[in-house]
Amino acid sequence: MGSYTSYLCFNTKSLREFINITAQVESAVKESGVKEGLCLINAMHITSSVFINDDEKGLHQDLAQWLEKLAPYGKDKYRHNLTGEDNADAHLKRTIMGREVVAAITNGKLDFGPWEQVFYGEFDGRRTKRVLIKIIGN
Amino acid sequence: MGSYTSYLCFNTKSLREFINITAQVESAVKESGVKEGLCLINAMHITSSVFINDDEKGLHQDLAQWLEKLAPYGKDKYRHNLTGEDNADAHLKRTIMGREVVAAITNGKLDFGPWEQVFYGEFDGRRTKRVLIKIIGN
Amino acid sequence: MGSYTSYLCFNTKSLREFINITAQVESAVKESGVKEGLCLINAMHITSSVFINDDEKGLHQDLAQWLEKLAPYGKDKYRHNLTGEDNADAHLKRTIMGREVVAAITNGKLDFGPWEQVFYGEFDGRRTKRVLIKIIGN
Repeated sequence: MGSYTSYLCFNTKSLREFINITAQVESAVKESGVKEGLCLINAMHITSSVFINDDEKGLHQDLAQWLEKLAPYGKDKYRHNLTGEDNADAHLKRTIMGREVVAAITNGKLDFGPWEQVFYGEFDGRRTKRVLIKIIGN
Repeated sequence: MGSYTSYLCFNTKSLREFINITAQVESAVKESGVKEGLCLINAMHITSSVFINDDEKGLHQDLAQWLEKLAPYGKDKYRHNLTGEDNADAHLKRTIMGREVVAAITNGKLDFGPWEQVFYGEFDGRRTKRVLIKIIGN
Repeated sequence: MGSYTSYLCFNTKSLREFINITAQVESAVKESGVKEGLCLINAMHITSSVFINDDEKGLHQDLAQWLEKLAPYGKDKYRHNLTGEDNADAHLKRTIMGREVVAAITNGKLDFGPWEQVFYGEFDGRRTKRVLIKIIGN
């Protein structure tokens, strides 16, 4: 069994952003040399996400608006913010969007359906964040 | 390390449906010959889910109604639907229910608790969709 | 490829509780002897969760209150409760929080970001529940 580890870095200009990282994940799979295996992609921070969805701008706006409705920003809305933070909503938004994706590698490639794209979802940006890619297989 | 790949196909009559796929996943585990390992089961589409919950009809009705409340259908409610689609709500519903399940294989069997059953959750049916089963281990 | 399996047991005094299980998961990783691999940690019950977030009390209160808003408890609110149960809300809460975490193992350790801690989330306690830790790798 072989394994491969790499890290992606992000420092978004906006507080919230969705970034398509499919090409980086594909590169990692190629570099790993793994033909059959599993690829874990996870946010290493608790106010951001890795998820799979469509690369369509309207949908991303819908997602952002929907998350704001389900888990609104608000310095005075959450107990967590009594610690001096104002990012409690980001913890909740990331909870809905998920921390990680596990993808299959088949014949040396990500075994994806036609519209599957991997995204990094930032909910508390303007600081450095990392994503981990871990691949195991043969 | 051994690996095994198979695909399930669905074309539901209803727009939304929950289908118990535990028996198919168990068959795949048996066929793989893997005794100790991991089994990834994921929707290959971005308007459907694979998740684990109880096989109880009342609960499935509760889930459907709850998802409709959190992410209501509506042609005019979402920017994504300006592309001509009417399935933005299905993208959101699948986000809550999740894309994938990773299950352990122990002694050649799915290592599940007493009530764990694997479901395919369709939120934009009446077209062909696929689920991927990927198994790695010894 | 090596593999390792262990089970954690919980019987919470409260109906709902978040328990930090990071130390137990770290022990399992050490005991497995795996240096490079994947670690699956999942609830074996459908009314509890395993998730990663911050170990901050205020945030945990925010999470509990938020889950109660999104999926309120109520004996008469859900069809599932017609079976004699009163835990339909716990099934929904766990759906939002997720069933499982997949973590990377690098150099014999959990490859976590600075604030990542693993939690067991109980939403229908006062009975025995189990969490599965499955590790595969080299």
